[in-house]
Amino acid sequence: MIVSAKWKGLTDAKLDNAEVIVEGRDDYAPGSIDYVMSFTPPPGKLASLPNLKAAFCLGAGVDGFLSDPNYPRRVPLVRFVDRTLSAEMTQYLLLQILMHHRRQRFFDAAQRAGQWRQETLQRRTEDTRIGFLGLGAIGSFAAKRLIDLGFQVSGWSRTPKDIPELKSFTGDVALAAFLGEVDILICLLALTRQTAGILNAKTFAALPKGAFVINVARGAHLVEPDLIAALDCGHLSGAALDVFAEEPLPSQSPLWAHADVTITPHIAAVSQPQVVLDYIRDGIAVFERGETPATVVDINTAY
Amino acid sequence: MIVSAKWKGLTDAKLDNAEVIVEGRDDYAPGSIDYVMSFTPPPGKLASLPNLKAAFCLGAGVDGFLSDPNYPRRVPLVRFVDRTLSAEMTQYLLLQILMHHRRQRFFDAAQRAGQWRQETLQRRTEDTRIGFLGLGAIGSFAAKRLIDLGFQVSGWSRTPKDIPELKSFTGDVALAAFLGEVDILICLLALTRQTAGILNAKTFAALPKGAFVINVARGAHLVEPDLIAALDCGHLSGAALDVFAEEPLPSQSPLWAHADVTITPHIAAVSQPQVVLDYIRDGIAVFERGETPATVVDINTAY
Repeated sequence: MIVSAKWKGLTDAKLDNAEVIVEGRDDYAPGSIDYVMSFTPPPGKLASLPNLKAAFCLGAGVDGFLSDPNYPRRVPLVRFVDRTLSAEMTQYLLLQILMHHRRQRFFDAAQRAGQWRQETLQRRTEDTRIGFLGLGAIGSFAAKRLIDLGFQVSGWSRTPKDIPELKSFTGDVALAAFLGEVDILICLLALTRQTAGILNAKTFAALPKGAFVINVARGAHLVEPDLIAALDCGHLSGAALDVFAEEPLPSQSPLWAHADVTITPHIAAVSQPQVVLDYIRDGIAVFERGETPATVVDINTAY
Repeated sequence: MIVSAKWKGLTDAKLDNAEVIVEGRDDYAPGSIDYVMSFTPPPGKLASLPNLKAAFCLGAGVDGFLSDPNYPRRVPLVRFVDRTLSAEMTQYLLLQILMHHRRQRFFDAAQRAGQWRQETLQRRTEDTRIGFLGLGAIGSFAAKRLIDLGFQVSGWSRTPKDIPELKSFTGDVALAAFLGEVDILICLLALTRQTAGILNAKTFAALPKGAFVINVARGAHLVEPDLIAALDCGHLSGAALDVFAEEPLPSQSPLWAHADVTITPHIAAVSQPQVVLDYIRDGIAVFERGETPATVVDINTAY
């Protein structure tokens, strides 16, 4: 069995009973490839592998595969779902939420000014409403931790979620009602035709004044000029962005210098090579037994 | 029944079936006071109240009462223990831990410079060891959440703790061994004669190089010049301090401008007036039934 990989973290990839070919580094016969692992395979690449049994996405979002119009629909596509990845993303969300909620930027400024400014929270924890756009494995994990810390948490998702103390919203009609009750909005959606550009002027207008926005999904979810306009008119109080329409974020982007925007370079949750490899090794074993892993994506819905 | 209070948050205090006297605002007969609630009563004050049935501390640490050499030992002293307070402190700890662990200051500097610097964590979460000095109600609550997020967690406490996946150390002899395995040290100890000054040069020297220190207990736990020396020689990588020997922190303190120190003005966990009042109302009811609340402090050990 030969597996093709293209990710610098996997250049020394070792899988039991498999020869790993790193694309671009080795020659290989297209018909010899049984499995592929990638974030974003070149369009048409998968269709050129006649004996491909399955494709493994190295991250949680599979838009890098399904954006290929020639994706071979007969090939099962497996998402990376892992507790470590969920915990890392939750760490990032907690950090950005708490920097905002606990006014860390305010206290940093007070410290720089040498001032003891004993301000309390602008809004008590139990009155602070955190809303998730997307409540998959990662969102559900994070939501439970935020509920545990005393926040009000809601979520908008394709299917209703039954999480204790979480208010679940479903469907396009409910989106405005969901947004109207959110002080901190988190985008964790899969990127699909339906969700691209969902963080736009209309969405921001539906949020209460002073809301804060966090995008950790994909850059294409956000209409960047709409965010800047909503910040500059004072409707939104701030944003934390880890993903961007173009990465690296171009140096001329006005986001870099915006006082109310925190920028991180797509580091919220990084898959660890060995954890991913263990996951893929287990997944290959399932396919080789003639079964299908639970985390295979529905190609039609991209979930 | 008359209750004496001295806290701006309680100036409108209402307790069922009780008249609340706010000290300094009203005249009162010392013999009319049944209960006192305070953070730090003036030394000798409690001894001047002949009919005092119990004293309620408005916070988790009772050193403001027990530092009074004339504290009337016959009077039960009740600590404030509350899930909300534990969750608020945990929020603060998560924020400071994650700012350090996830390199937020580094990414802030990169953003100011307009640079996309996609650095990974300096240390993976599962290799990062967080150690608690003090594992009471608040420390135990926080420790469990950090374990859940993937950190290695240990604790040094008076009595051994049985928390799943937590490494428990007890007693003076074990202190150095505990410190030798800690990358992020959190002080949550009660302030007693034994613990005052515990964050000193010897303690810092026992930590691995590059360790980070968080003090959210009392300013008197920390020997501030020892901290500055340990930071300046590069042994410690940073500190986050919410409490200080003198509060407000004097403007001439070198801590204000230290590049590796985050200062917050004693805001980590603020007791909420109504939550505290509900707690005290319930506690008074217990005493009036002739019983003793579970959170009465042992005057001899201060725990």
